[in-house]
Amino acid sequence: MTFANVGHLGTAHGRRDELVAILTRRSDRLAEAGCLLYEVGVSDDKPDAVFVVELWESAEAHRASLTLPEVQASIAAARPLLSGDFGGFRFDVVGSPLRD
Amino acid sequence: MTFANVGHLGTAHGRRDELVAILTRRSDRLAEAGCLLYEVGVSDDKPDAVFVVELWESAEAHRASLTLPEVQASIAAARPLLSGDFGGFRFDVVGSPLRD
Repeated sequence: MTFANVGHLGTAHGRRDELVAILTRRSDRLAEAGCLLYEVGVSDDKPDAVFVVELWESAEAHRASLTLPEVQASIAAARPLLSGDFGGFRFDVVGSPLRD
Repeated sequence: MTFANVGHLGTAHGRRDELVAILTRRSDRLAEAGCLLYEVGVSDDKPDAVFVVELWESAEAHRASLTLPEVQASIAAARPLLSGDFGGFRFDVVGSPLRD
């Protein structure tokens, strides 16, 4: 079942674009690990935050991806940029009005 | 610029699946209006809530879609099911690790 993980990560003031650069670094390993969609964004309403929407083939695929060396490296690179303010939610996809 | 709208909608106890049915009703008008992705889901952790991730060609396309007759009809049908508990966030997509 397709699994969605969405969230926002607060950054230290002025460090947002560094986090965007880390999270958007091209990674073919993510698709191989079952990542279907991974969109990274920003908002003028919250200038020190990065937003992420992820879709995965399953919750298990998402969980397993966290142990990939390059994901571990991204987490380590991101950590010094984070403010500690974060939030989001996870859910199981059950349908879409765009398809039968 | 691709625009993301993600959120969760709390429902009256036991009415979740009725809201899922409304939100997943097939609608070709959404794609015509610039909707790129619209995933609806649920979570065992929050049994009286429905989760939505939407991607749109632009924030303007999303805003304009709210005036479509069928979107207005969905909103009217959904309203009696809602608990008033809701949340989420919106952002502009700036990239993805899945593509250059």
